[in-house]
Amino acid sequence: MINKIKGEIERANKIALISHKSPDGDSLGSVAGLGQALMEAGKEVTLFTNDSIPGKYEFLAENNPFVQYKKGMGKEIDLLFVLDCGQASRLDYSETVLQEAKIVINIDHHMKNPNFGHINWVDTEISSTCELVLELINKLKLPLNHAGATALYTGIVTDTGSFMYDNTAPKTLRAAANLLEMGVDKDLIYRETYQSRNIQEVKLLGDVLKDLTLLFDGRVSFTSLSQEMLKSYDLDIQAMDELIDFTRDIAGVEISIVLKEMESGGTKIGFRSKSDRRVDSLARSFGGGGHEKAAGATVKTDLTETREQLIKALEELFH
Amino acid sequence: MINKIKGEIERANKIALISHKSPDGDSLGSVAGLGQALMEAGKEVTLFTNDSIPGKYEFLAENNPFVQYKKGMGKEIDLLFVLDCGQASRLDYSETVLQEAKIVINIDHHMKNPNFGHINWVDTEISSTCELVLELINKLKLPLNHAGATALYTGIVTDTGSFMYDNTAPKTLRAAANLLEMGVDKDLIYRETYQSRNIQEVKLLGDVLKDLTLLFDGRVSFTSLSQEMLKSYDLDIQAMDELIDFTRDIAGVEISIVLKEMESGGTKIGFRSKSDRRVDSLARSFGGGGHEKAAGATVKTDLTETREQLIKALEELFH
Repeated sequence: MINKIKGEIERANKIALISHKSPDGDSLGSVAGLGQALMEAGKEVTLFTNDSIPGKYEFLAENNPFVQYKKGMGKEIDLLFVLDCGQASRLDYSETVLQEAKIVINIDHHMKNPNFGHINWVDTEISSTCELVLELINKLKLPLNHAGATALYTGIVTDTGSFMYDNTAPKTLRAAANLLEMGVDKDLIYRETYQSRNIQEVKLLGDVLKDLTLLFDGRVSFTSLSQEMLKSYDLDIQAMDELIDFTRDIAGVEISIVLKEMESGGTKIGFRSKSDRRVDSLARSFGGGGHEKAAGATVKTDLTETREQLIKALEELFH
Repeated sequence: MINKIKGEIERANKIALISHKSPDGDSLGSVAGLGQALMEAGKEVTLFTNDSIPGKYEFLAENNPFVQYKKGMGKEIDLLFVLDCGQASRLDYSETVLQEAKIVINIDHHMKNPNFGHINWVDTEISSTCELVLELINKLKLPLNHAGATALYTGIVTDTGSFMYDNTAPKTLRAAANLLEMGVDKDLIYRETYQSRNIQEVKLLGDVLKDLTLLFDGRVSFTSLSQEMLKSYDLDIQAMDELIDFTRDIAGVEISIVLKEMESGGTKIGFRSKSDRRVDSLARSFGGGGHEKAAGATVKTDLTETREQLIKALEELFH
């Protein structure tokens, strides 16, 4: 596998990297991290984004020359790395790049990745694509500069919740130690990704927490965000990501549920668990999916009806 | 140093360990961690506490036989380890144990530790006393069991804010990796220490955030908690520890300040910084002290007057 990837890198003049839409720390970090290593190795490298970069990751854009992908831009690319992308459709409008580039290498850590590349390196046991990319860089003996190390650290930190999640293995901590030794500016990463809450989100959080509903003897926390609430704080449905973890992290709560009203009138449901009660089966019963401890669904019913249906489903779970 | 400590352990039959009042993860973790290793090595060991164990650390008490110290209990002790205790007076009423025990070994990571033991191993560069204790255990080749490893991991995690703080070094992450390999139940630690918020604190947080005051163009966040507010949520002045970090972690905020009204009518002031503006000098000007990024003071003035004085002091800082 490594030799195949090595051969393709050696043969290629123009290399590009891309990741999924709605980018997170691991997708931007892996594109920038491997991109920097390939640039240092003397390759002509393009770092594609296929969506706007969220404010908290703008610091990565300062040291890494991201370029917004447009249809046709992949035609000159000899070798394309698709990173942290569980399926081709998550490339959204940028999916065309898969046909344009001569060779596609798919490197990922998501379950059920259908191996859509010519070469596929998928490790579902590893914390993050950034940790996998660091392994690749080490095996290929590529040089890693300061910007690249910072990008990879960002992805490991954000995908492990700063080493809190289950996916943190001893080797994850050792990979982070090695990156830190290269002079990663850890404080910058934390300041931008964790310590930069939006003041409007903080105020809405206050509004919501004050009247938090706990159900089933405090074992389920329930929160709803209407379009009206979001709009009155000048926020959209992407906002308030933190709420579901925050309400899970209350003593006695096993499952936290957050409902968000969509502009269409339907509802997005988020589920988190911190006990042995799985939420993926709950999410599937509403047409969604996910993992044991984090899952979600999108339904056509409004907030009130969705809530009623959820309470019925929970009654069966807790009866 | 190591040989001296080794000699004292070999000579001693009865060994005790103790830490500071108002125990935190690092003090309880280091007492339990080193205590377990000494027990495994066949010593007769007593784990003293000199205060009640906070709810979030009760899981440590389940696997570690803590005993509340009472005056006189140290008289049978050949060797006493005082761990994570920056000065003897932080032992509070338990300070008598220093005279009772035959030999005192002081192991700590706090600045300005006055070396109050017969043997003193103080490393102010290390993340936590637990990391230092792990070094000691390795150097002494003491056996570390599952309960001990879990206790040490707890202290490292809580003293580094899950590896977020400045004090996290590459070797800190490697120490954590080694502990994880011993089968530490990381999920239990996080569930108990980070994911068990008090519901009353969550509701008061909501109340406070809703009307959060930002001053000096959003660079300072200001929050006051009166006795009336605390009491109406059935909380005391020890509560709401999280508030000051939470309000620091707002985009644009450089300094967060939390005032808490004491039952005496005076005010406890907490300061946090996430920029280059130091808060230790600010705290000192109010008769307190601390570090560049975290400091505090206790004053006799009430909430309103303290706030006015603080705003004057901040005007000089930001003018």
